[in-house]
Amino acid sequence: MAAYDVIVIGAGPGGYLAAERAGQSGLKTLLIEKQHIGGTCLNEGCIPTKTLLRSAKLLHAARGSKAYGVSCEGAAIDHAAVVERKRAVTASLVAGVKGSLRASRVKTVEAEALIRGQDAEGFNVEAAGETFKSRYLILATGSRPIVPGIEGLQEALAEGFVLTSTELLEIDRIPSSLCIVGGGVIGLEMATYFAMAGSRVEIIEASSKVAGSLDGEATAVIQKSCEQLGMSFHLNTRAVSFETGKVKVDCDGKQEEIECEKALICIGRAANIEGYGLETLHVPTEKGAIKVDEHCMTGMPGLYAIGDCNGQGMLAHVAYRQAEIAVNHINGKNDPMRWAVVPSLVHTEPEAAFVGQTVEEAKANGIDAIGVKLSMNYSGLYQAENANGQGIMKVVFDRKKRTMIGAVIVGGPASELITICSMMIDNELPVDRMKSYVFPHPTCAEIIREAIFAAKL
Amino acid sequence: MAAYDVIVIGAGPGGYLAAERAGQSGLKTLLIEKQHIGGTCLNEGCIPTKTLLRSAKLLHAARGSKAYGVSCEGAAIDHAAVVERKRAVTASLVAGVKGSLRASRVKTVEAEALIRGQDAEGFNVEAAGETFKSRYLILATGSRPIVPGIEGLQEALAEGFVLTSTELLEIDRIPSSLCIVGGGVIGLEMATYFAMAGSRVEIIEASSKVAGSLDGEATAVIQKSCEQLGMSFHLNTRAVSFETGKVKVDCDGKQEEIECEKALICIGRAANIEGYGLETLHVPTEKGAIKVDEHCMTGMPGLYAIGDCNGQGMLAHVAYRQAEIAVNHINGKNDPMRWAVVPSLVHTEPEAAFVGQTVEEAKANGIDAIGVKLSMNYSGLYQAENANGQGIMKVVFDRKKRTMIGAVIVGGPASELITICSMMIDNELPVDRMKSYVFPHPTCAEIIREAIFAAKL
Repeated sequence: MAAYDVIVIGAGPGGYLAAERAGQSGLKTLLIEKQHIGGTCLNEGCIPTKTLLRSAKLLHAARGSKAYGVSCEGAAIDHAAVVERKRAVTASLVAGVKGSLRASRVKTVEAEALIRGQDAEGFNVEAAGETFKSRYLILATGSRPIVPGIEGLQEALAEGFVLTSTELLEIDRIPSSLCIVGGGVIGLEMATYFAMAGSRVEIIEASSKVAGSLDGEATAVIQKSCEQLGMSFHLNTRAVSFETGKVKVDCDGKQEEIECEKALICIGRAANIEGYGLETLHVPTEKGAIKVDEHCMTGMPGLYAIGDCNGQGMLAHVAYRQAEIAVNHINGKNDPMRWAVVPSLVHTEPEAAFVGQTVEEAKANGIDAIGVKLSMNYSGLYQAENANGQGIMKVVFDRKKRTMIGAVIVGGPASELITICSMMIDNELPVDRMKSYVFPHPTCAEIIREAIFAAKL
Repeated sequence: MAAYDVIVIGAGPGGYLAAERAGQSGLKTLLIEKQHIGGTCLNEGCIPTKTLLRSAKLLHAARGSKAYGVSCEGAAIDHAAVVERKRAVTASLVAGVKGSLRASRVKTVEAEALIRGQDAEGFNVEAAGETFKSRYLILATGSRPIVPGIEGLQEALAEGFVLTSTELLEIDRIPSSLCIVGGGVIGLEMATYFAMAGSRVEIIEASSKVAGSLDGEATAVIQKSCEQLGMSFHLNTRAVSFETGKVKVDCDGKQEEIECEKALICIGRAANIEGYGLETLHVPTEKGAIKVDEHCMTGMPGLYAIGDCNGQGMLAHVAYRQAEIAVNHINGKNDPMRWAVVPSLVHTEPEAAFVGQTVEEAKANGIDAIGVKLSMNYSGLYQAENANGQGIMKVVFDRKKRTMIGAVIVGGPASELITICSMMIDNELPVDRMKSYVFPHPTCAEIIREAIFAAKL
């Protein structure tokens, strides 16, 4: 029986990084993956989506190029080529992860893992007909799309009329119409691709706004630009039944039928906690996910759960961070997550990003908060690069401490800029310090400087 | 005679921001500008260039769109429309500056200023037939392209065969060929626009590398991509004479004639210190610029010089910062420049940005420095967005302090990402702190995290 210091189950962003970091720190490490090295993120999530969006945004830019003095007659997208490129990008990144695992001296087994309980020597895990033993076990089993109990949904999925994001990313041609059930981040990113690529897209959202916890004003900018791409939104609306070519929805008791070639169900993701013998360890779960503390420890010594399977963040960058937290804890290092500075992204057109608290959240937390809202057009580069850009930036400050506590950006490279705000928030930089940074000119980042100066602190 | 607390001469980025900040702080402020509110940066520098580059990069992206599964047949640029858009962007930004000046209660006079010396009550400045008086005088008179004493240059400029960047930005059609004398940032950015728009571009550079003080490896990436755009480079080469349609150059004693429709002279910029009565104040100058200390004070109490005219940085963001430094000093606040964290940008394709020290510079400064170099392809988003991207990131650490001291980025939104590095450097963040940031996924910013983990510290 092969013995390891650490076994990691699941090779998504959390799992592969945990294995790498464990291996790099000198721990004898085994990584077990039943499907794809790279997990959802690399194979059917973040990266494939962004590859598709790259192509769609290029098409969109070409179509709108007249506003910039450029003509691109008859710009068109070849979906099959886009999917082919997506596969190549994914393959390249997966190869990179495999190389990095080897360089970190991680043993990898591509097979299903089955936990066979724990004894005095550690955890027992079966895979590929072998039993492995380890002192530490890191669960990084990820999540899967939630398939709710809606009338006709199972049949529609089986038949291929309804898809989850996994299948939609592999579809071989652009459907003429697509009904998206769930207006969260995944739904909006898929909507952006397919709307730009030519689908008539309708979005069904049960709550009163799309884009999850994104600030309301920022969401309004996103929704408006989605509508300009031809999407229709049905808010406060639930899907009540599916039959081929039709999604029946209910909005405040009023029912309606939406006809569409394909439908996407993306109302959320559920932690994977079944099918790999977790029950043999008697670990507490909460709301369908493995319960962990700030070090990603379960109640059982030596057993960690990171990433989507603990239900805390359901974001690849949370999984990455938790991988480090867990391995650091194994190595005796106290390194808890700072949740206040975990950013969120929405890769729509324009893209949006946010971190920290909104004014409303801060006030609810008893903070004397003040917000500033600026058009992104305060940045000269933004104006140079965006004809009629509608982007905004909102920054929230703690008036007493004179520090930044939250930020929302819509437009420009929002996802890249948000880290500047994260760092200001995380380091509790005094406002005078923030004012004295030299933001290079011309950049969109300068909007952050403008917002800091605009705050009445 | 109208009396002010502060008179600012020159309304470029330094001058208009100094006037705004002075006005906002309650000082009675007068701003005098002889030509364009917004100065070189807004009217004939950074912003016009970036507006042109936006269009050219869009054309370039459309032409290369096949690699992303998108077809754009016959993509073309309409230079006249691009210039028209540039004027509109500039006009919009200038209007914004004017609005901001009004909101800051700054009085603006658009006329030539003439300093008439100083007396017990302060400085005397004439403009538009009136004499103004102030306790404090801030000089923000900017710079102009250097026109060296090369045979035939004056005639070629008069005739319009040779242009400076000012005239080139107003040219009404794309020349078939363009010889650029000076391979610094301005030369490379102009070269990028005109090469993408269809000119055959040759670059003459007197030193052994282009892109000024940009790291050598980064410069090599930029130069290679410029060559892929069809540019030719003549390094260690000087222009020795100009006649219509010809630039004669000398490379190590070997002379050659370069035929071209137009030539651009951009070997640097000289501070504007003449023509506005500076001599009446007997202020020391150094290398043709006004000598100032770390608060932008000249030797004379109450007299400040900010931005290009003091020759310290010749960058718009240095001018912005110095505007604040000077006004803070007037208001009794000690707020010196931190030169170690002034970034530099090169808006080529791909763009490049750098801040702090290279390994070589740090070692010369007696620091036990260690560098890390990574391909930008370590970022999944970079791969998703760049087919065959050649970008790199280099980070320099102080091994003893375990802090970041320099960074260079080529590729992706380098100009936006560099501020993240600036902040890490400026705050001397310990490596463990930097490692514990949650960089959102997927972003190009993640490359910074990769570099921090890759460093052998």
